[in-house]
Amino acid sequence: MNRADLTEKILDIKRDRGLTWAGIAEAIGGYSPILITAACLGQMKLTKPQAAKAAALFGLTPSEARLLNEPPYRGSIPAMPPTDPLIYRFYELVMVYGTTFKELIQEEFGDGIMSAIDFDMTMERQPSPKGDRVKLSMSGKFLPYKYYGNDEETPEYGFKNP
Amino acid sequence: MNRADLTEKILDIKRDRGLTWAGIAEAIGGYSPILITAACLGQMKLTKPQAAKAAALFGLTPSEARLLNEPPYRGSIPAMPPTDPLIYRFYELVMVYGTTFKELIQEEFGDGIMSAIDFDMTMERQPSPKGDRVKLSMSGKFLPYKYYGNDEETPEYGFKNP
Amino acid sequence: MNRADLTEKILDIKRDRGLTWAGIAEAIGGYSPILITAACLGQMKLTKPQAAKAAALFGLTPSEARLLNEPPYRGSIPAMPPTDPLIYRFYELVMVYGTTFKELIQEEFGDGIMSAIDFDMTMERQPSPKGDRVKLSMSGKFLPYKYYGNDEETPEYGFKNP
Amino acid sequence: MNRADLTEKILDIKRDRGLTWAGIAEAIGGYSPILITAACLGQMKLTKPQAAKAAALFGLTPSEARLLNEPPYRGSIPAMPPTDPLIYRFYELVMVYGTTFKELIQEEFGDGIMSAIDFDMTMERQPSPKGDRVKLSMSGKFLPYKYYGNDEETPEYGFKNP
Amino acid sequence: MNRADLTEKILDIKRDRGLTWAGIAEAIGGYSPILITAACLGQMKLTKPQAAKAAALFGLTPSEARLLNEPPYRGSIPAMPPTDPLIYRFYELVMVYGTTFKELIQEEFGDGIMSAIDFDMTMERQPSPKGDRVKLSMSGKFLPYKYYGNDEETPEYGFKNP
Amino acid sequence: MNRADLTEKILDIKRDRGLTWAGIAEAIGGYSPILITAACLGQMKLTKPQAAKAAALFGLTPSEARLLNEPPYRGSIPAMPPTDPLIYRFYELVMVYGTTFKELIQEEFGDGIMSAIDFDMTMERQPSPKGDRVKLSMSGKFLPYKYYGNDEETPEYGFKNP
Amino acid sequence: MNRADLTEKILDIKRDRGLTWAGIAEAIGGYSPILITAACLGQMKLTKPQAAKAAALFGLTPSEARLLNEPPYRGSIPAMPPTDPLIYRFYELVMVYGTTFKELIQEEFGDGIMSAIDFDMTMERQPSPKGDRVKLSMSGKFLPYKYYGNDEETPEYGFKNP
Amino acid sequence: MNRADLTEKILDIKRDRGLTWAGIAEAIGGYSPILITAACLGQMKLTKPQAAKAAALFGLTPSEARLLNEPPYRGSIPAMPPTDPLIYRFYELVMVYGTTFKELIQEEFGDGIMSAIDFDMTMERQPSPKGDRVKLSMSGKFLPYKYYGNDEETPEYGFKNP
Amino acid sequence: MNRADLTEKILDIKRDRGLTWAGIAEAIGGYSPILITAACLGQMKLTKPQAAKAAALFGLTPSEARLLNEPPYRGSIPAMPPTDPLIYRFYELVMVYGTTFKELIQEEFGDGIMSAIDFDMTMERQPSPKGDRVKLSMSGKFLPYKYYGNDEETPEYGFKNP
Amino acid sequence: MNRADLTEKILDIKRDRGLTWAGIAEAIGGYSPILITAACLGQMKLTKPQAAKAAALFGLTPSEARLLNEPPYRGSIPAMPPTDPLIYRFYELVMVYGTTFKELIQEEFGDGIMSAIDFDMTMERQPSPKGDRVKLSMSGKFLPYKYYGNDEETPEYGFKNP
Repeated sequence: MNRADLTEKILDIKRDRGLTWAGIAEAIGGYSPILITAACLGQMKLTKPQAAKAAALFGLTPSEARLLNEPPYRGSIPAMPPTDPLIYRFYELVMVYGTTFKELIQEEFGDGIMSAIDFDMTMERQPSPKGDRVKLSMSGKFLPYKYYGNDEETPEYGFKNP
Repeated sequence: MNRADLTEKILDIKRDRGLTWAGIAEAIGGYSPILITAACLGQMKLTKPQAAKAAALFGLTPSEARLLNEPPYRGSIPAMPPTDPLIYRFYELVMVYGTTFKELIQEEFGDGIMSAIDFDMTMERQPSPKGDRVKLSMSGKFLPYKYYGNDEETPEYGFKNP
Repeated sequence: MNRADLTEKILDIKRDRGLTWAGIAEAIGGYSPILITAACLGQMKLTKPQAAKAAALFGLTPSEARLLNEPPYRGSIPAMPPTDPLIYRFYELVMVYGTTFKELIQEEFGDGIMSAIDFDMTMERQPSPKGDRVKLSMSGKFLPYKYYGNDEETPEYGFKNP
Repeated sequence: MNRADLTEKILDIKRDRGLTWAGIAEAIGGYSPILITAACLGQMKLTKPQAAKAAALFGLTPSEARLLNEPPYRGSIPAMPPTDPLIYRFYELVMVYGTTFKELIQEEFGDGIMSAIDFDMTMERQPSPKGDRVKLSMSGKFLPYKYYGNDEETPEYGFKNP
Repeated sequence: MNRADLTEKILDIKRDRGLTWAGIAEAIGGYSPILITAACLGQMKLTKPQAAKAAALFGLTPSEARLLNEPPYRGSIPAMPPTDPLIYRFYELVMVYGTTFKELIQEEFGDGIMSAIDFDMTMERQPSPKGDRVKLSMSGKFLPYKYYGNDEETPEYGFKNP
Repeated sequence: MNRADLTEKILDIKRDRGLTWAGIAEAIGGYSPILITAACLGQMKLTKPQAAKAAALFGLTPSEARLLNEPPYRGSIPAMPPTDPLIYRFYELVMVYGTTFKELIQEEFGDGIMSAIDFDMTMERQPSPKGDRVKLSMSGKFLPYKYYGNDEETPEYGFKNP
Repeated sequence: MNRADLTEKILDIKRDRGLTWAGIAEAIGGYSPILITAACLGQMKLTKPQAAKAAALFGLTPSEARLLNEPPYRGSIPAMPPTDPLIYRFYELVMVYGTTFKELIQEEFGDGIMSAIDFDMTMERQPSPKGDRVKLSMSGKFLPYKYYGNDEETPEYGFKNP
Repeated sequence: MNRADLTEKILDIKRDRGLTWAGIAEAIGGYSPILITAACLGQMKLTKPQAAKAAALFGLTPSEARLLNEPPYRGSIPAMPPTDPLIYRFYELVMVYGTTFKELIQEEFGDGIMSAIDFDMTMERQPSPKGDRVKLSMSGKFLPYKYYGNDEETPEYGFKNP
Repeated sequence: MNRADLTEKILDIKRDRGLTWAGIAEAIGGYSPILITAACLGQMKLTKPQAAKAAALFGLTPSEARLLNEPPYRGSIPAMPPTDPLIYRFYELVMVYGTTFKELIQEEFGDGIMSAIDFDMTMERQPSPKGDRVKLSMSGKFLPYKYYGNDEETPEYGFKNP
Repeated sequence: MNRADLTEKILDIKRDRGLTWAGIAEAIGGYSPILITAACLGQMKLTKPQAAKAAALFGLTPSEARLLNEPPYRGSIPAMPPTDPLIYRFYELVMVYGTTFKELIQEEFGDGIMSAIDFDMTMERQPSPKGDRVKLSMSGKFLPYKYYGNDEETPEYGFKNP
């Protein structure tokens, strides 16, 4: 059994039963629709209780439920760069603003990165008379490169001759 | 003259004079540091008055100021996928959450995309006892695919035989 | 069930019943043959009533009809650059005229893009004694980059220190 | 001397003298701004008289004028897929509508292609209360694959044993 | 049904019945073995009568015969560059002589291309005491780039302000 | 000025003065030779005092010293996969053991990653009668994916309708 | 039968029976969990007795047991660069530290490589109040390039004219 | 000195002196314009006497003449697939007809290839009332794969145990 | 039927019956194990009598035997560069020594290549107290580029004006 | 200073002084022409005495001599796959015979590789009435994968819980 096949099965059930991601997220537990949707699409794991609820909701086998509880091999896009226009626009933002992100995060925080693991996100509809907008808020922990030397726990480095 | 050379020149001046992006944005005009930084990195144009202030700030030639006022050939990353870890994390987010963005935006808005052109962004430091976080908020206009047929202005399509 | 399989099924039915795209477009509704063809090829969605007519025409299952009503993961070309000569010629036009499009659209409209979403197209046979021609007309809304500063609704940008 | 350097030189002169493509096209001759712009960007050749006028306008050397009169090595995009959003939208249209173009052109004309060589194009601003549009019209000669057997001139094919 | 599967089926039948391309071409009609072979390999279409004869020869279903009559999605090589040595040698010729073709065709004909559509080819065994040779003759119509301005039918180009 | 040029300059000076990385690391400060070497190769920043010592050691300009203090655009390999055999062996280890790392880290720690940022490393010569060995020890903080729901600080997710 | 299918079968059995890699390694023999895990994932071979135990544990056919005893076609990552974040971090380490590895290994050992074949590895949990760490220790034999001329066995090189 | 620079120099001289490839071929020696053109473009070597004549014609240094006499690193196309339409058409022919070439050459000659080394070519203008054609004739020696076992000189193969 | 499936079938039979390549080569005929192995792996054809013996040995259908007698579409590596370490080492040799091969073969033989078609190979175990070695001997016919002008049979080249 | 520039300088000197690789190898020391040639092409290091002789022979600076004594960043081919036909033939051999090498080496030696580091090579002209041949003999140490468990020195593997 393979996670991609399970994703396709879940999408088939969702379509045939007219489910929505909002409804699925509510049925599976109190978490974010983003998290639950990503898990159903094979990008996140569900906790055991969540996987059990998902199995009940979709009528999955115990084996499929267990698969939902495993960390998946991540990477949801068939091929990069993404050919789908909606997803490509995000890829384009990385190409256009990537160096700006780097300069501004480093100016504010020093050398390091914004974590994509200790990370969360919300999406919101932003009404506007000129046309509603998609609002996406991301928050990732800043992780400094470990090398400023002000950390006593830093292990010894380098060649130790025998 | 070539925009990449101008970017390198501006970065040299910034380094040698100890400037910051915050300071540069303030000196150039009231706009967002993100916009001004992106423009200095060759990804956005500056308006004529902004370009004039940038020229004054950096000591640029009139020709260089005019170049800052031209829409650049966008794409700031030397090669995709980005090799720099800070920028790669954003690329990874697109790979992991791309299909989730697609599902949720479409569920809320219908078929269409979040514009990467009619788009704005803020960055903020989010203090946290567990380690401060980078908060990034994006807002892009939703653009529906034009084909629902409820628009009288839709032009005629299809082969008109002579 | 997977959109590519549905496309192959529709093409099989079309071939076996001797249908034409013009006839299919007429049977499905008043819209453009381009839109209907693209939807049958898995690149656009059909509205619910259109999908119902398509299901009746092709003898599809309700599940397949629902799939036609979903926005597809777009990208119709097996691999880029396209190996098929007819499609490659359009790719070539982008390579040869891409920078010209950029210069002329920017000279006329300012910094921005021609939307590929708020977009429509017609194709026409253009008779000529030297050999008939394919006439393709595209019309896309111009979308200006949002950053000229003359918009009071522009959100605040930049790092707000805590 | 290399065509890319000449393009950069022409763009520098255009910027410093505040020229427009419309003005350049008018100064060089009665042809289309698209053609003249593409030639200045190194994608088309200019005729000898046009090259002479371009040399006068831009102050080029005789050698540079001769270079403008040579068919260039075409391909204007630094790397495919194009990273610039304006140009990428055209690339996206090929990915989304490529198979539709193939189906509809073949249904109307039979097996063959739309020429990208015996080809012309116009661009126009289409005013609209909802936001002006870019209108692009392309016309390419249909070229049928030569193999229907109704052509007496078709040469003999196949192995002729000695 | 898919053209690649049909090709595999035809190759199976050819192998099991000990057919030759020469024999197949003769059975299907008077055309070139190159054309008929390419069609059986999924790169060209057969005319209706040819497809009928092919169906009779190979024992195909009516649906398969109709598929042979459709213009295929061309591109016969599993991946480029071709891994098979026989085919690679042709690819190598393009890499080594491509710029020479460009220079010499342009010197003789002006700016344009040799059509790969209005094109034909013969192959012949050339006996030689030093080892027989493969002789391949190609003939493609020269297509001039349409832009010399000596054609009254040239449409108007350029932006027409509203 | 560009970091790659500075790296080449430092390597030239190291070669001409017969310096070693061990000696350079000692001269610059008490840190790991790995860190100092990586910084000289343009992959890490040096702190201000380290950069000052590096400038004294190599005879760099103040501007070059400032550049050493900036976080670099990381990515030291000219092209991936690496063509150099020594570096390729590490790439091969990722290809062969990558899925094993994933399974074992996840079995021990749950869903998450080993940080490549909060990370350190030592290299050691391991003497052996059968031939000395290179011993490389890596230690990276485990970062759990933030989504187990046992964190009260988790922000609200999902679409909030207006 | 194909090694990838066998890997998927083993993962299905592991999931359905709630096995762990630690348990599997213990059941199969006294070797390292890393080795046994890699073998189950199709990257290493098992010895005959190990394969027999694995067959007993998983209920494999004799043919599948024999397959586990064959050296596999190595390469566990679906596509490089790896899209999964856990595995990507190792890829990133190669990109960032690859040239540093090269410089330091060569400084210590001379010209040669660290073997990825005569190689072993351990993983360990490193407890830390700041968050536990993954500790990975690698040890590979140093292999000098054979060309220093101090080896009498070096065969004769070069062209020997007839 | 580098062959690409020499090619650019020769093209500059040809342009400035108004030379033609036909004239250059005549001046350099009695050989084919294809050979001479390819050599001037850096794809073939010239013999010593030819290189001397080329040096005289173009006013080259002795060092440049010697370079013309060296076998070059072949490969004339900046990047594959070729972006220039004239050259791309040949690439397309390989993609469309590659498998046909393979089938027909093998049917006629057995298993082997058409040499791209023991190879020659002619180009000719083929006048036609419908538009003149480019005629390209290639002739390459057939090279059979050496393994039919009817050759007494075949060396022994396989492992010879010590 | 498809050659890759046949290869997999043969490998299954070999595994289940405990055959060796040496044994297979002996059973099929007097040829080299390298040739026979390559043919079983889908890279060479077997002669008719060899294919008959292979069919008897492996219990193949007549159709499968005929397939073994066809020249295959060569290219045995799933993707280049090869991910398997044993095969990669040969790829690496080409990257490191490729230009050396070119220089030394050309110095000895003139401009041309070593044929990979009129080619043979042996492998041998070379015992050594320091560890046995793999000895690989290749012998390919030198093929000179045909253009030295000392061959009266050279066809006429160049454009012959009508 | 950069190794590629030094290679170009050496090739210029070799050309201008009419040197041969055989002569260079003799002048530099008693080693193989393959080794010396590879070193001059930037793929191997020379020992200090060899580098001194090379510096004397070519008239290099002390700094350049030191560079010749450094292990280079290996990888001599501008881009893979190699465009030059002579070098490509070796690449092709890897594609065609790679899996055969794997099967036969493993059958003879067990699981492991042929080293490309503890490796040597000779080239020889093999006279033949049918055309002289290039004979290439390679010999690499067999390196077994370290995991058969018959080695007491094998370190402990696996997670050791704290």
